[in-house]
Amino acid sequence: MSWGVDNLPYGVFSSPGESPRVGVRYGDHVLDLTAALHDEVFAAPSLNPFMARGRAAWHDTRTLIRNKLTDDLAVTERHLIPLEQVRLHMPFEVADYVDFYCSIDHASNVGTMFRPDTEPLLPNWRHLPVGYHGRSGTVVVSGTPVKRPHGQLGAGRFGPCEKLDFEAELGFVVGVPTEMGTSSGAFEEHVFGVTLVNDWSARDVQAWEYRPLGPFLAKSFATSISPWVTPLEALPRIPGRPQDPEPVAYLRRQGDWGLDISLEVLLNGEVVSRPPYSSMYWTPDQMLAHLTVNGASLRTGDLFASGTISGPERGERGSLIELTWNGSDPIKLASGEVRSFLQDGDTVTIRATAGDLTLGEVSGTVV
Amino acid sequence: MSWGVDNLPYGVFSSPGESPRVGVRYGDHVLDLTAALHDEVFAAPSLNPFMARGRAAWHDTRTLIRNKLTDDLAVTERHLIPLEQVRLHMPFEVADYVDFYCSIDHASNVGTMFRPDTEPLLPNWRHLPVGYHGRSGTVVVSGTPVKRPHGQLGAGRFGPCEKLDFEAELGFVVGVPTEMGTSSGAFEEHVFGVTLVNDWSARDVQAWEYRPLGPFLAKSFATSISPWVTPLEALPRIPGRPQDPEPVAYLRRQGDWGLDISLEVLLNGEVVSRPPYSSMYWTPDQMLAHLTVNGASLRTGDLFASGTISGPERGERGSLIELTWNGSDPIKLASGEVRSFLQDGDTVTIRATAGDLTLGEVSGTVV
Repeated sequence: MSWGVDNLPYGVFSSPGESPRVGVRYGDHVLDLTAALHDEVFAAPSLNPFMARGRAAWHDTRTLIRNKLTDDLAVTERHLIPLEQVRLHMPFEVADYVDFYCSIDHASNVGTMFRPDTEPLLPNWRHLPVGYHGRSGTVVVSGTPVKRPHGQLGAGRFGPCEKLDFEAELGFVVGVPTEMGTSSGAFEEHVFGVTLVNDWSARDVQAWEYRPLGPFLAKSFATSISPWVTPLEALPRIPGRPQDPEPVAYLRRQGDWGLDISLEVLLNGEVVSRPPYSSMYWTPDQMLAHLTVNGASLRTGDLFASGTISGPERGERGSLIELTWNGSDPIKLASGEVRSFLQDGDTVTIRATAGDLTLGEVSGTVV
Repeated sequence: MSWGVDNLPYGVFSSPGESPRVGVRYGDHVLDLTAALHDEVFAAPSLNPFMARGRAAWHDTRTLIRNKLTDDLAVTERHLIPLEQVRLHMPFEVADYVDFYCSIDHASNVGTMFRPDTEPLLPNWRHLPVGYHGRSGTVVVSGTPVKRPHGQLGAGRFGPCEKLDFEAELGFVVGVPTEMGTSSGAFEEHVFGVTLVNDWSARDVQAWEYRPLGPFLAKSFATSISPWVTPLEALPRIPGRPQDPEPVAYLRRQGDWGLDISLEVLLNGEVVSRPPYSSMYWTPDQMLAHLTVNGASLRTGDLFASGTISGPERGERGSLIELTWNGSDPIKLASGEVRSFLQDGDTVTIRATAGDLTLGEVSGTVV
């Protein structure tokens, strides 16, 4: 079954009249972990205290939950609550939010659009995973409406964003912190799991504001994540895509951290793109190594995202700006409507699967 | 006296063997507010719960403390602890950290250095206060040693930063949050006070990494702030510097939020620069209006900084890259030593005064 014992993602839920607490999704139910495991760490309204316990605890807890749902199911059943009876909340408290730019197809598409007379990739792109800090206070859970932002669209021009876009991404959630002044490439020791991310973007605001310090208001109005955090341990891994040139030592891969995850982007219920995570150039272990190589510390709840996931094919592009080539080639929906960028009332849903495993979805409607 | 009843900045201190709690600086003492005001909000290890109470509470508390230190001094004296008997901590928990780029002299200097054949200011600069998000998890209190970061200095080049720099800035601390989807220009309702900021920068890392998404590892290794947060109410205000062109409506000034603050930057005890805050182009009310115009919410503990403060004169430049013109014109210290950028063991101290008021200092040593 979907959401079976090989999946077991963590989230935060509440029953009517009760406080939010940690649960695990199993089929169409949420397992109430506070009740099932008699552990107060799950009574918190976020995954942070549990994530801080570290890899051995994550593994042991997962094993315990599997046992409860197989050998002890008769006893555990009473702690399974139907999904339709609960509300899902932000699964963790976001400490710092970093967004990378790890898809070579995405970076090449954007480079070709905005710098048509030069090499699509900037000189640094193949040497390091380019990234920047986003606003952690506006990371919201799937289902939260996204208000179209206002902003400057050019010199003296102010109004509602006319080029509102989505970005289909994967996010990595840090459990175990590091001390300031140390670097760490020990990916599995620090990263607890993954979440789906929609990094909503105001392309017109971005084009005007981004030089020389990068995107700011074009991204800070909202970033949506899926309510379920899939443990790293559950994910099938594949070798990362070959890299040329070979990166400097701290960025050399220590294991296979390519992820064979297939995404789907739906606009008003219709699939408009199928980005393959396997096409990403920089792997998440390299993102973590880069993020900390200067001694920047990690905190429990840090979120770092992959950047837009785009594959080489047109139908694999993870943003509208790429799918419609900055609006010049609108996409036609089955309804007969066309879209260059998002309109009010549009719902964007990003889903993902990894083999038999589902990562669920992140969804949001523009209001 | 210095640090008199017209100043009264807030901080977090601990006596040996006791937990950190909130105090106010008075002369060479810290007033223990939990004891003096019988209010548990000050027993927290950060200013956040108090800052969340809002402007009326900030004003009433300030009035109360003044009374305690004047009319009731005989009773209050017992709650004054000599500074040398306490340790100072981070005064607040940083939520999101944003850094702006508000000095026209700084932006012009940097533009001239890095884009010598074009206009020093990019086309957007006079239309909006350019800003970006920094790493809130590595904001540290004055006195914390700063480890020289490692990073990529160019294609295939990795090693310790060779162009380590300081940036003298002023930071604004948010007390009262806003809802996502709303904008706010009500500066005094949201901003609690100011702190001094040293936004340490690895210039060689920055030059290689920053295109197209802005500074990342060049800044994320450490940002130092002063231990005392001066209430907005204490600061003398002046009109902001004239702006041309007039900014669009949401950026129009609602009052006089220019600040007549004089900074000093000391390198190993010697003054190397005297940046005047009065020369800033964008005022802090404009920064706040810009930050929230897209609907991005504020949280208690948000910190937004001015960007490097540089005046028009050479001796008023707030960073080494400007003082030494990217190392081409090193500064000579009284000791006979020269500096292009910071060396290990160097101590940078930024001090500030506003008329008779002192804002104290932020200091850090490179290790």
